Amino acid sequence: MITAKLVQQLREKTNAGMMDCKKALEETQGDLAAAEVALRKRGIATAAKKAGRVAKDGAIASYIHLGGKMGVLLEINCETDFVAKTDKFRDFVKDIALHIAAAKPICVTREEVPAALVAKEKDIARAQVKDKPPQIVEKIVEGKLDKYYSTVCLLEQAFIKDPDKTMKDLLTAKIAELGENIVIKRFVIYELGQSDAAV
Amino acid sequence: MITAKLVQQLREKTNAGMMDCKKALEETQGDLAAAEVALRKRGIATAAKKAGRVAKDGAIASYIHLGGKMGVLLEINCETDFVAKTDKFRDFVKDIALHIAAAKPICVTREEVPAALVAKEKDIARAQVKDKPPQIVEKIVEGKLDKYYSTVCLLEQAFIKDPDKTMKDLLTAKIAELGENIVIKRFVIYELGQSDAAV
Repeated sequence: MITAKLVQQLREKTNAGMMDCKKALEETQGDLAAAEVALRKRGIATAAKKAGRVAKDGAIASYIHLGGKMGVLLEINCETDFVAKTDKFRDFVKDIALHIAAAKPICVTREEVPAALVAKEKDIARAQVKDKPPQIVEKIVEGKLDKYYSTVCLLEQAFIKDPDKTMKDLLTAKIAELGENIVIKRFVIYELGQSDAAV
Repeated sequence: MITAKLVQQLREKTNAGMMDCKKALEETQGDLAAAEVALRKRGIATAAKKAGRVAKDGAIASYIHLGGKMGVLLEINCETDFVAKTDKFRDFVKDIALHIAAAKPICVTREEVPAALVAKEKDIARAQVKDKPPQIVEKIVEGKLDKYYSTVCLLEQAFIKDPDKTMKDLLTAKIAELGENIVIKRFVIYELGQSDAAV
């Protein structure tokens, strides 16, 4: 039985994506050390180390959807112009742009979700479980909040083209593949006639 | 019994919000005509019609510059999808995107320039002319401020491809040519590695 806690431990050790960690643990029957080795062999654990390096090169890219009714502009950084110009990097950037247009996240990481939105979600979640025993209320609320993050934070969303992976998994795999730190820096979505809409 | 279909019919007739329609139908026991009157009395149907007339069509477009080192995303509105799809409109949008990438305005109109920037420019201008007679100082400051606006406000900039015209001239000519109101609604410029820079 692969517990969520075990997956979490492996994630903290390797910084690999959740699905990668789960798979590695399943393959090794829950042996944490062996799973780490398995990830390292596949280059996924090393990706974690690279994730700390400065990435100031990369690409600005755009995607225009529905014949001009919607558009996405985004910046993805890598470490060198050399990697920025590879087809693999360019294709990755294109995938992210497409994903953003389809999944409409509001920010990249959960740390960037506006505090007011988080407070609102917590209020709603608490109201929904107000009749439950107090000792489990906070746990349920946290669970609902995690669910919320997975709908609005790019890195926690399921990848549109391969929903078994989160975007974070995709990113980690790409870092391992290209051997450079890659950062999804920022993006903006324009929808026709929506600029006056409240966030 | 107020069915979803009935609510939908009232929405299509009045363009009012779903809850307003539902409430009006409940008050009138499902009488569609009476509900429409009720909404109109409350001004909700009329307001909705006016809102519907606002120019909300147009196009979202992008321009990627320098092989991905810089990018522009913009929204330009016109009144109908018909005009939005014409080559003339599309070419106009393309021209504006190119211009923005080259001239790097910070906003569309002078009203949108952040107050802090205006105050700073005024301070600088006053310091430059502090030895002039007081009665002409304000005039010179206003002149310098106009000059500043013409460098940072899109509509006041000289058109890159035809510097004898301002962008406002270009826009006015296009409105006359296409016979519809056109609004340069918003834009954003991304430059590689510049997201942490102060505005």
